[in-house]
Amino acid sequence: MTATALPPLQKPPAPPGTRRFLLTISYDGTRYGGWQIQQNAISIQQRLEEALHKITGEPVRVTGASRTDAGVHALGQRAHFDTAARIPPDKYPFALNTCLPRDIRVLECSLVPGDFHARFDARSKCYTYRIYNAPHASALLGHLCAHVPVALSLSAMEQSLPALLGTHDFAAFQAAGGTAKTTVRTIQEATLTREGPWLTLHLRGNAFLYNMVRIIAGTLIQVGQGKLPPDVFAAALASGSRLSLGPTGPAQGLELTRVDYE
Amino acid sequence: MTATALPPLQKPPAPPGTRRFLLTISYDGTRYGGWQIQQNAISIQQRLEEALHKITGEPVRVTGASRTDAGVHALGQRAHFDTAARIPPDKYPFALNTCLPRDIRVLECSLVPGDFHARFDARSKCYTYRIYNAPHASALLGHLCAHVPVALSLSAMEQSLPALLGTHDFAAFQAAGGTAKTTVRTIQEATLTREGPWLTLHLRGNAFLYNMVRIIAGTLIQVGQGKLPPDVFAAALASGSRLSLGPTGPAQGLELTRVDYE
Repeated sequence: MTATALPPLQKPPAPPGTRRFLLTISYDGTRYGGWQIQQNAISIQQRLEEALHKITGEPVRVTGASRTDAGVHALGQRAHFDTAARIPPDKYPFALNTCLPRDIRVLECSLVPGDFHARFDARSKCYTYRIYNAPHASALLGHLCAHVPVALSLSAMEQSLPALLGTHDFAAFQAAGGTAKTTVRTIQEATLTREGPWLTLHLRGNAFLYNMVRIIAGTLIQVGQGKLPPDVFAAALASGSRLSLGPTGPAQGLELTRVDYE
Repeated sequence: MTATALPPLQKPPAPPGTRRFLLTISYDGTRYGGWQIQQNAISIQQRLEEALHKITGEPVRVTGASRTDAGVHALGQRAHFDTAARIPPDKYPFALNTCLPRDIRVLECSLVPGDFHARFDARSKCYTYRIYNAPHASALLGHLCAHVPVALSLSAMEQSLPALLGTHDFAAFQAAGGTAKTTVRTIQEATLTREGPWLTLHLRGNAFLYNMVRIIAGTLIQVGQGKLPPDVFAAALASGSRLSLGPTGPAQGLELTRVDYE
């Protein structure tokens, strides 16, 4: 940031005397009310801020790249914070992990420029959605997947995905409560793989609307069952109507896999 | 069983008027004191017998193929039980799963001969031991692996495994408390694969001694760290001494993957 440029209001730089750090965080969302601090549930953000307070001795606010919902997991969430503490970046993961519950792990920490922003500077995000397609649920990994006991047509599901690729107005792909100013998004990758009973959907895009990945997953499951046609995504992009799509897939199937920056 | 042959005492056949059924069961062992019914902890066997009591209306005793320890998981445990109830085999999984906690799932049920025995008739058992080799523990799958934060040499570990193959006296590979009459066992398969931070050990054998797989895994981790030489298994087979081997690996890394019958 140069001295003459005023930062946008939503993107306050690190205050004088502080440095900005970027964390990579993994969590099992099962026991949490989601990423963001809230009244009636424990959030990942709260646990992380409590741990940072202990380590730095300062009240610390973290800003996440993605506000994952209740029950949604992360392999590589990112979040930045500012502190005057002189702790070297590589000490943070070990120090924080001693204060955090075992279902939240800080994997990496790096020093970033004072005007870096974990959310606004993200170039792309990768999400993974896991479907366990077997008559009975998974005893071992039930918390990490949506269970679908009926047969699914992989080829119908695969056929539906290319329509999502590219830059489109994804207005139909948003749950009520979304606050995005524009609903235009770019999806760079949409693949589905099968390994035994596991179906894994990978999506990479520049950004996603509220519940967008779960709506895509829930719709895909209906395509696999023949309840919706393989051209459902193309039709929803044309209609712009949420009603063109299937239900929102269960939260526990979703994982924020990685966030990339320039 | 013919009318003239007396069954061995440990292998009572299904009583007259009952039929014998074989279940395939998967469970997350985290919350349980192990497979076997015990005084001070909830066991998988207890939960299963409670569910069978509800479904059949009879007190039912189940006999497992393997008495997995506290914290050990199963993808394909097997257990037989006898009942006079006329419920068709394919109804059991769905009926039992409505009564069982979500971390125990019955996957299959089949009718077997009245003298079939889930443990004594097992021809081979496959175990999987998972090691998560990364600086920080896994937030998502920490309950399914042993976490090793230091570097491991895959080649040293792989080099150690062939010594286990074949028929040997595995006396050194048994924890105190083992009650086996003979310590001779046959291992048909011992492989280690790496995928990113995950190291997966597969062992298949005709039977295993008490804690045998966990002792192999714990020793293998020390071989990977260079604390024990790659010929450690050969040396322990020669010495017959438990002291030749490394520590018992953590329970949560172990999964009983499958049990096969003739």
